Amino acid sequence: MTNTQVTVLGLGAMGKALAATFLTGGVSATVWNRTAGRDAELVAAGAVGAGSVAEAIDNGEVIIAVLLDHASVHQTLDPVVSQLRGKRLINLTSTAPEESRELARWADEHGIEFLDGGIMAVPSMIGTPASSILYSGDKALFEAHRATLELLGTAEFLGDDPGLAALYDFSLLSGMYMMFAGFFHGAAMMSSAGVSAQEFAQRAVPWVTAMAQGFPGYAGAIDSRDYSAEVQHLEFQQAAVNAIVRASRDAGVATDLIAPIAELIDRQIRAGHGAAAFARTIEELR
Amino acid sequence: MTNTQVTVLGLGAMGKALAATFLTGGVSATVWNRTAGRDAELVAAGAVGAGSVAEAIDNGEVIIAVLLDHASVHQTLDPVVSQLRGKRLINLTSTAPEESRELARWADEHGIEFLDGGIMAVPSMIGTPASSILYSGDKALFEAHRATLELLGTAEFLGDDPGLAALYDFSLLSGMYMMFAGFFHGAAMMSSAGVSAQEFAQRAVPWVTAMAQGFPGYAGAIDSRDYSAEVQHLEFQQAAVNAIVRASRDAGVATDLIAPIAELIDRQIRAGHGAAAFARTIEELR
Ligand SMILES: NC(=O)c1ccc[n+]([C@@H]2O[C@H](COP(=O)([O-])OP(=O)(O)OC[C@H]3O[C@@H](n4cnc5c(N)ncnc54)[C@H](OP(=O)(O)O)[C@@H]3O)[C@@H](O)[C@H]2O)c1
Ligand SMILES: NC(=O)c1ccc[n+]([C@@H]2O[C@H](COP(=O)([O-])OP(=O)(O)OC[C@H]3O[C@@H](n4cnc5c(N)ncnc54)[C@H](OP(=O)(O)O)[C@@H]3O)[C@@H](O)[C@H]2O)c1
Repeated sequence: MTNTQVTVLGLGAMGKALAATFLTGGVSATVWNRTAGRDAELVAAGAVGAGSVAEAIDNGEVIIAVLLDHASVHQTLDPVVSQLRGKRLINLTSTAPEESRELARWADEHGIEFLDGGIMAVPSMIGTPASSILYSGDKALFEAHRATLELLGTAEFLGDDPGLAALYDFSLLSGMYMMFAGFFHGAAMMSSAGVSAQEFAQRAVPWVTAMAQGFPGYAGAIDSRDYSAEVQHLEFQQAAVNAIVRASRDAGVATDLIAPIAELIDRQIRAGHGAAAFARTIEELR
Repeated sequence: MTNTQVTVLGLGAMGKALAATFLTGGVSATVWNRTAGRDAELVAAGAVGAGSVAEAIDNGEVIIAVLLDHASVHQTLDPVVSQLRGKRLINLTSTAPEESRELARWADEHGIEFLDGGIMAVPSMIGTPASSILYSGDKALFEAHRATLELLGTAEFLGDDPGLAALYDFSLLSGMYMMFAGFFHGAAMMSSAGVSAQEFAQRAVPWVTAMAQGFPGYAGAIDSRDYSAEVQHLEFQQAAVNAIVRASRDAGVATDLIAPIAELIDRQIRAGHGAAAFARTIEELR
């Protein structure tokens, strides 16, 4: 239980989950949503339903924005910017790193303390140990409200750069989307032989879990830029990936997702790095 | 301990590991390699070093080919095909499903019993519980030598289609390569803010492990082709992936790997499936 007066702006799936978790944790919450009528359950659970953004901000010491995107944050807050002066704003809307940095500059210009966060959880996970939220920006703000924020899940402060939490968020999400895309690709290949995606999933889950343990090994090579010490050099990987490309075609599966990987490896080999480690592929990206 | 006389053709990193594990398990092994002199350690450990493929085949009841690729299997076995008649051939060379099927037809034409396998392990894992080998083709052959094959790691028979083990192998590998590519992409984004790949890996391993638990959920939608019941529909995913594409550009990271995912989602939405579940993306692939 903390004494902080929290305001949650945005009652989509995520905003509702955050507000409900605050209430369960004994935190006083004022809630607001652009489209009226979405606050009924929360008000029944003890929240104050604000009729306007201005009223919602007046009630709160800490204002949490959990809207759709960067544009919606400005659309919601620009008209009430003068009221935000001296308040604490925590942006949990998924904004790109540069957008989070822009919001931090904007907040600074208007005398608003600013913390940005990236929610690494779906709404049903909020308030459970599976939920993790990454923060960056104003460290003092984070520390002052750490106990309140920890009601939502593990709260971690990453650094002063207000774009850092979003950068972690987007980097982890990019890895997730590519892994999901890889699952779809593999499942499409299997379906060519009449094997269900469910059967494939049963093997794919332990497989990718085991293979993900290789990340720190790749990271060592990436950080040192020493791409020499590996048995399975790029030419070996090229043969394997090209074989997957051919097998995909044989199975009638589009190569839109796997061909670009083959292309990155090819370019590294053409640049003379055929004997280098697989992790050198990253040099084609950055 | 089994009484089977095994011949291993190919003493690269994997062939050596297989042969050494057979010897440790008490199986008599004859070994051969194209380039001479690679069998010294194995001979010291009790293997018979054959001077020619013909001699190696004569010594073996079960012939295991673990060569570079499909072409090298034919180059090695075509000249001695008459001697293979009545023998049992297990191909553990990574051949694409269609190539494994071709080898099965070729074996059948020449009176050779044929089993194909896909090794889901690196050489250092062979003989440990972490090693898994998938088999398909001649079930009787598999059952007759199951105990011997289990010395190498978990041995699973998937079906009569000789291409099935390779299809699982390549499908799982495609997922692995895309996951690794996703790790490289995310690590490249993080490096734009001076965060090491090692630091990113520490978060990425538990993150992708947790997210991989979502595969069975996607599989359910894919198998039923019922893409309706999801909160985070394709338009939500489109916004997220487009934001990652923009954030990648902001961070100076090439979008070669992430842009194709955005493109698949876009095409599904243009085809009128904006309210469908994310798993519908697979329909762009198959
Ligand atoms: N859901 C997740 O799994 C998840 C996970 C991590 C992060 N996030 C992030 O959390 C944020 C909210 O997600 P959500 O799942 O709650 O989304 P959602 O269910 O689609 O809700 C979107 C919310 O934004 C409001 N909104 C949209 N445009 C607006 C505007 N121009 N002005 C004012 N309000 C506006 C909507 O209000 P109306 O009701 O008036 O339309 C609604 O409250 C997003 O940035 C999302 O990326 C979500
Ligand atoms: N290493 C792994 O992690 C791994 C994992 C799963 C599956 N596999 C598969 O296992 C197979 C062997 O891999 P490896 O790691 O042992 O590869 P490797 O160390 O590169 O060895 C390749 C072997 O193939 C032989 N070879 C190549 N071309 C030949 C030809 N035309 N005729 C006869 N022999 C030829 C080589 O003989 P020379 O010594 O004369 O060159 C060598 O014995 C490959 O298909 C690979 O994809 C490997």
